[in-house]
Amino acid sequence: RINADRLQETIHHTCQWGAAHRYGSGPTETGMSRLSLTDDDAQARRWFAEETQKLGCSLVVDQLGNMFASRRGATSNPTPMIAMGSHLDTQPRGGRYDGILGVVAAVEVLRTFEENGYQTHHDVGVVNWTNEEGARFPKSMMASGVWAGKIPLEQAYSLADIFDPSVTVKSELQRLGYIGDVACSSAGYPLGAHFELHIEQGPILQDAGKKIGVVQGGQAYRWFTVTVDGRDAHTGTTPLKSRSDPLLAASKMIVASNSIAKSLGALASTGVFKIPPSSSTNTITSRVTFTLDIRHPDDAVVDQVQSLCFEAFKDIAKQDGRGVQVNWTLDTDSPATKFDPDCIKMVEKAATDLVGSDGWLHITSGAGHDSVNTSARCPTTMIFVPCKDGVSHHPEEYCSPEDCALGAQALLESVVNYDRL
Amino acid sequence: RINADRLQETIHHTCQWGAAHRYGSGPTETGMSRLSLTDDDAQARRWFAEETQKLGCSLVVDQLGNMFASRRGATSNPTPMIAMGSHLDTQPRGGRYDGILGVVAAVEVLRTFEENGYQTHHDVGVVNWTNEEGARFPKSMMASGVWAGKIPLEQAYSLADIFDPSVTVKSELQRLGYIGDVACSSAGYPLGAHFELHIEQGPILQDAGKKIGVVQGGQAYRWFTVTVDGRDAHTGTTPLKSRSDPLLAASKMIVASNSIAKSLGALASTGVFKIPPSSSTNTITSRVTFTLDIRHPDDAVVDQVQSLCFEAFKDIAKQDGRGVQVNWTLDTDSPATKFDPDCIKMVEKAATDLVGSDGWLHITSGAGHDSVNTSARCPTTMIFVPCKDGVSHHPEEYCSPEDCALGAQALLESVVNYDRL
Ligand SMILES: NC(=O)NCCC(=O)O
Ligand SMILES: NC(=O)NCCC(=O)O
Repeated sequence: RINADRLQETIHHTCQWGAAHRYGSGPTETGMSRLSLTDDDAQARRWFAEETQKLGCSLVVDQLGNMFASRRGATSNPTPMIAMGSHLDTQPRGGRYDGILGVVAAVEVLRTFEENGYQTHHDVGVVNWTNEEGARFPKSMMASGVWAGKIPLEQAYSLADIFDPSVTVKSELQRLGYIGDVACSSAGYPLGAHFELHIEQGPILQDAGKKIGVVQGGQAYRWFTVTVDGRDAHTGTTPLKSRSDPLLAASKMIVASNSIAKSLGALASTGVFKIPPSSSTNTITSRVTFTLDIRHPDDAVVDQVQSLCFEAFKDIAKQDGRGVQVNWTLDTDSPATKFDPDCIKMVEKAATDLVGSDGWLHITSGAGHDSVNTSARCPTTMIFVPCKDGVSHHPEEYCSPEDCALGAQALLESVVNYDRL
Repeated sequence: RINADRLQETIHHTCQWGAAHRYGSGPTETGMSRLSLTDDDAQARRWFAEETQKLGCSLVVDQLGNMFASRRGATSNPTPMIAMGSHLDTQPRGGRYDGILGVVAAVEVLRTFEENGYQTHHDVGVVNWTNEEGARFPKSMMASGVWAGKIPLEQAYSLADIFDPSVTVKSELQRLGYIGDVACSSAGYPLGAHFELHIEQGPILQDAGKKIGVVQGGQAYRWFTVTVDGRDAHTGTTPLKSRSDPLLAASKMIVASNSIAKSLGALASTGVFKIPPSSSTNTITSRVTFTLDIRHPDDAVVDQVQSLCFEAFKDIAKQDGRGVQVNWTLDTDSPATKFDPDCIKMVEKAATDLVGSDGWLHITSGAGHDSVNTSARCPTTMIFVPCKDGVSHHPEEYCSPEDCALGAQALLESVVNYDRL
């Protein structure tokens, strides 16, 4: 049995690094801003290293700062460890559970093994994946993507901070001393399986009154950065027909992408919208950059939304005044994923044992997770627990202590089931 | 006769302070970024003070940093000076002529008087008005507005930097030592008349092949800051119907304002669009702030565009998901203006003498100018000269040396005509 109080204490202990966006007077009533590879992230990493080493784990840091902590099993010829993985980085206005719960619960599972003198058959351990959020360096699940061979290492290294192009993943890893010797790949550090506990981040479990989601896979998504170029001009003296107004065009593009996605039952969202700092009320700006995030459980629908959007964008670029230039880059491409049937069965069994067969449901993840990447290289699945009103990527993101504990217990039992398999 | 070469040299000499946005290799092929009450603006102000004092002018700085340089006329009982005024501040991506030409040409007129030993009947002088652009502190023609009694002094003092709320007009005036003793009002420093030379900033003169615009007045305009509040949410797990997405709503509002203005032959423009710095690709942002600039020669049409826009905005705020909150503030309100018939006649005469009656035309200003404010308190008009392709508020803004010189000569002759009246 995991220790529910210790789990809570540890979650909030680690949230001292990067606590932000207070919304209430209680000690834990803040959100988090612990962007990947910042000083706060480094503090959380140091905690992770110390804590797992205290539990007798051996720790490996790979070339991208992924941290693998492994506890020996009984078997004499060691096999790749059964991993419980998630991430300690957060969104800039994120909460205390997204990613954090998965890593801290995994540490709690190891603590429970340790204090009960429980020996697994295989090696079992925890992974802290670098830059899952893609918030600071705009490629989500970055380091698990490199580990899985989906993203070239050099491409990840050269990713720049979204607001400060002078800073890259590599320069921050170097600054913090987090470039390890081991290759970031499934050959460099193979895993036997990957289980990830995570808050659902959506409303499905809460609405259905269920306690555990057994995750079948993840929906597809793609991220783009769209750049619209126009020409500075005076707002009072420049007739509409003489303008080349990127802000008007970008607005039309965002409206169009939303309506295209809606018509196909998909999602299209813009989270970042930037103009040059030298902008003013009475000047048409020269350039707009915005992000576009397209999602659907079916790869083909993501394709379709994408091509309809870019057709519409090209059309909009010609619509007003002298027109604008539009260009885009693909930043993240995460196809639809199906998780491993054996892993899923182990989680189903754990869930039924804990909450009965009526207490859980099958679910497909709306968000990307490191598990989407690991599933390309090792048997993988995830366990979801409900979060209040399905809210995440928000300071008030909340998962009750009972649900955190239930999730951690389900994680423990899934791993034990899999280890026995 | 003004000295055309000296005029050019002086324009570009003063553009050493705040030169920015190089677009060619020539020494003058840069734009300007000399925002009001920055260190660069202070350097230009010091040049203005020294130069006018060298010409024997007495210099007065009022409470808002407006600079009045006055040269004695022949009359024994002094009357309020005939002013030639404009501004030395620029847009963040502005050019070398907007405002600057008007002030430097006025200094050139005084130099021409001085070297010819020409004595006017009345006192004649130059005004450098503070924060005409409204680019940094978002109220255009701010200090002439206070002088004219249209804007309360305290309201101007408390205006904050559009990107740094900790800095205000007052704190910057204090920092630079530019709060003078004289009241900023037409009682504190009365003017007998106000003539302003300015680039047209539009394409009308160039298209008509005319050299001088005799300005009849200015079109009406209003500036608003619109704030749209929503709620952070995950872009992958939050169904469209559960969202409160201010970025989508703001985009729709900008598209709507453009189409409303278009349908009424008016202008509506958004130059500034801001989201919180803690934004990311996979998070719906919590707040968007954007500016709206509505213009038309007729006050009633500006009214109409405004009310249609805000009706549409309220409607859009309810359209998607859980809706958003929309609020706005009025930042600048500049009604349509008619300039003084006597002043206009003096400019018409000067223009006819210089380029013949076919060489100039009557024109209404699309942009606001300090003259719009002074015209409420003293006889006022303006002289326009063409600028290349009507481009301004852009680094490549350009007025040929010949047109600059012709404008300065027209300014001189208009003032002489008026002085003799
Ligand atoms: N779980 C999560 O928020 N991951 C970030 C990648 C995504 O946007 O889906
Ligand atoms: N002339 C000029 O650009 N003035 C600033 C006020 C306006 O936007 O019209």
